[in-house]
Amino acid sequence: MSKEKQFVKEITPQSEDFSRWYIDVIKKADLMSYSPVRGCIVFKPDSYEIWENIQRELDARFKETGHRNAYFPIFIPESFFNKEKEHVEGFNPELPWVTEAGGEKLEERLAIRPTSETMIGHMYAEWINSYRDLPLLINQWANVVRWEKRTQPFLRTSEFLWQEGHTAHEDEADARRETMQMLETYRDFAENFLAIPVIVGQKTPSEKFAGAVDTYSIEAMMKDGKAVQAGTSHYLGTNFAVAFDIKYLDRENQHQFCHTTSWGVSTRLIGALIMVHGDDRGLALPPKVAPTQVIMIPIGPPKTREQVVGRVDELFAQLKQAGVRVKVDDRPDQSPGWKFNEYEMRGVPIRVELGPRDMENGQVVLVSRISGEKKIVKQENFVEEVQNMLAEIHQQMYDRAKQFRDDNFTSVDSLDEFKAFLEQQRGFALAGWCGSDACEAQVKDETGATSRNIPFEPSEHKKTCLVCGESAKHTVVFGRAY
Amino acid sequence: MSKEKQFVKEITPQSEDFSRWYIDVIKKADLMSYSPVRGCIVFKPDSYEIWENIQRELDARFKETGHRNAYFPIFIPESFFNKEKEHVEGFNPELPWVTEAGGEKLEERLAIRPTSETMIGHMYAEWINSYRDLPLLINQWANVVRWEKRTQPFLRTSEFLWQEGHTAHEDEADARRETMQMLETYRDFAENFLAIPVIVGQKTPSEKFAGAVDTYSIEAMMKDGKAVQAGTSHYLGTNFAVAFDIKYLDRENQHQFCHTTSWGVSTRLIGALIMVHGDDRGLALPPKVAPTQVIMIPIGPPKTREQVVGRVDELFAQLKQAGVRVKVDDRPDQSPGWKFNEYEMRGVPIRVELGPRDMENGQVVLVSRISGEKKIVKQENFVEEVQNMLAEIHQQMYDRAKQFRDDNFTSVDSLDEFKAFLEQQRGFALAGWCGSDACEAQVKDETGATSRNIPFEPSEHKKTCLVCGESAKHTVVFGRAY
Repeated sequence: MSKEKQFVKEITPQSEDFSRWYIDVIKKADLMSYSPVRGCIVFKPDSYEIWENIQRELDARFKETGHRNAYFPIFIPESFFNKEKEHVEGFNPELPWVTEAGGEKLEERLAIRPTSETMIGHMYAEWINSYRDLPLLINQWANVVRWEKRTQPFLRTSEFLWQEGHTAHEDEADARRETMQMLETYRDFAENFLAIPVIVGQKTPSEKFAGAVDTYSIEAMMKDGKAVQAGTSHYLGTNFAVAFDIKYLDRENQHQFCHTTSWGVSTRLIGALIMVHGDDRGLALPPKVAPTQVIMIPIGPPKTREQVVGRVDELFAQLKQAGVRVKVDDRPDQSPGWKFNEYEMRGVPIRVELGPRDMENGQVVLVSRISGEKKIVKQENFVEEVQNMLAEIHQQMYDRAKQFRDDNFTSVDSLDEFKAFLEQQRGFALAGWCGSDACEAQVKDETGATSRNIPFEPSEHKKTCLVCGESAKHTVVFGRAY
Repeated sequence: MSKEKQFVKEITPQSEDFSRWYIDVIKKADLMSYSPVRGCIVFKPDSYEIWENIQRELDARFKETGHRNAYFPIFIPESFFNKEKEHVEGFNPELPWVTEAGGEKLEERLAIRPTSETMIGHMYAEWINSYRDLPLLINQWANVVRWEKRTQPFLRTSEFLWQEGHTAHEDEADARRETMQMLETYRDFAENFLAIPVIVGQKTPSEKFAGAVDTYSIEAMMKDGKAVQAGTSHYLGTNFAVAFDIKYLDRENQHQFCHTTSWGVSTRLIGALIMVHGDDRGLALPPKVAPTQVIMIPIGPPKTREQVVGRVDELFAQLKQAGVRVKVDDRPDQSPGWKFNEYEMRGVPIRVELGPRDMENGQVVLVSRISGEKKIVKQENFVEEVQNMLAEIHQQMYDRAKQFRDDNFTSVDSLDEFKAFLEQQRGFALAGWCGSDACEAQVKDETGATSRNIPFEPSEHKKTCLVCGESAKHTVVFGRAY
């Protein structure tokens, strides 16, 4: 047990202090350590393995849709940022700069990438000649750095891990099709892999990516009612193509600028997983992303121990063979009760208990981390029963998260109504918006809530702006956000 | 086709100019681009996919032996380097420094990691309390930066990708066992996955890792007779444990320093693959690591085209189903001859041709990239024949590389003899060495060759030092190196 872990005796209840609950859980479940570098955390094996599962699944989805991975330098010359005005304004305040290397002062400062549109734009200009080179569909798995003022483990760290897709297309239609395809990939992944229901929509201009024409996002609600932007997809128009001279010869032998896109998700998904599904007992991991899906614990007195452990090992082998991520904890120096708590706290979806009486009856006990349901099943149906329960747990976790979101989602007609809602409870509000930056800013000033996105499928279309009362251009989801 | 590629019309023959051959091949096969940042390259999809295959295989081997992945910050406070004297001396000249971030000058400069012993040492000190926490077996996949004076694509770049294993143990015996286990993992991987024969041995003190007690390496011979150090494994003793206070309570409740190890391979393996196996026709990739193992090319006149392509697609599906990485090139606007050259240049191990006559005869033609052998096989045995040929090709590539190395490996008794050898041909020499730094340095000064390692299994044990003629302490492999 690590020194850090020992400091967390009990997990603070969510209702008492959600932020402390969050830190308690990630410490006690051994997911991360603070590092000696400001805002940087260490991803310990139990959180990194969640990230590996996310990577494996997304990477397969990217490749199925024709993307390939590549790797671009982490260093970006200062002059690159100055080529796209909005981009430099958006990112400059957060950049770390390398000014010396190899014992010498550099002629030009090098930024550590906060995102790679500029470097990749520069390379694409070199690579792309003709329409035959398009579309160019590349993804990068990488570390990026944004020197944030306020950091929070997983959700906002100075250095984080992510993937960034960067594609170049012949025209707007194809680039927009790609932008939407990747947004849909993220939605499907969030809901069907992470069991996190998300709101899909377009960012308002003030919230869009620095340098994008349009930004789309998926937004998730945490158990404290706050939002996490869980993935974004940007249609960049010809902004970066013009800045970096990404041109191609079209079918009529004319030079045209490419239309580009970019899209990404990051290790903040780990934070979202914890805050969407966790409870006062600790982590609760959806089966598809959980490093360990099933923990098997032999029980009973020492005299039957060897026999029980032998049978557990056989059942373990069956599960493993079937592709289930399963572990056995047969340590004799920890009690079953201690182990039950431990693996509940670590969020393992299913606990399997096997004792001497189960041996006699040819049965085995499955316990769901989510519902607490105890299911006694025949050993001969073990693998199938486990697989069914894993599927059920995924669905239950999704349904619960969706129910929670629906319960904390209101519709308001005025700023006062929104403020009153936020005093009662935390959550999102659907509201009309006239489209002016001023009204959007006023919502933020008075409530701390920002526009999350303009949902594609709002439950209703609002008629008037919640601030000025003028005719609404859009129906917007507002919420406080991480 | 990229602009860069167009500049390489023909590949320079290896015998004419090996360095130009290397650059021509990697350009023409579209493996990399130079970036605008000094010494940094872009890993284009075809080289990155080689790295992904390396990663997948090694990662599985690391996990099988009980290691887990984690991720540590890329930034290392300057003070950390000063804690281990040899380490700082070894790496300081190559460090890039972040001095400003978020609009402010930093109080302490942050190095970009050249390797992570210091950061991980700091964290291990926090994590490890008792012998129950040991061994701690962690690996990291990451980018690292060394501001090298001379760079060469893949082999030596300012930023590169690698894995670094870092483990902590109760005692020297266990740490040394780990060091040797990982060295053996690398040897087996190099030989049985990359088809690269390697010399396994210990580095001399002057060539060991900065801060290690003992460094072990696997060394490969390129087709120009030069060496590439393809992997290293270090026993670090208690050097980093003392510097970072990595202590544990032993079974007698006494504080003890841990014994630690580290070990790594990097994207330079891609360069080694190219230089060990490539030839004047271009790349030649060993089947297990090749992104595309089989390219299928339908041939024959337009009137039978549809039928032929239909059959190719069926056979393609069979291969894919069997887990072979296969592609079809049925572009009608490129001739079969052009395609044959193209995929030979790109190093695809097997070409499959299918034309109307093959259709009639129920056969298909397999062509080996390595031997040029054309094998006509029955379509009903297609998958099995391909799998057999892939296995044969692996073995042939290994055997050829081994034969080449043996042909360019001499044994010398004096420096003059070694010099004479190097004037005749390039290659390695086995020689006795008295153990003095001065004699080792003299070999380097006069020949440009360095000690590669002290092989565990030399073909003979040399009696006298090649320089001073005194009694030899070790039998050493010398060679010029990348």
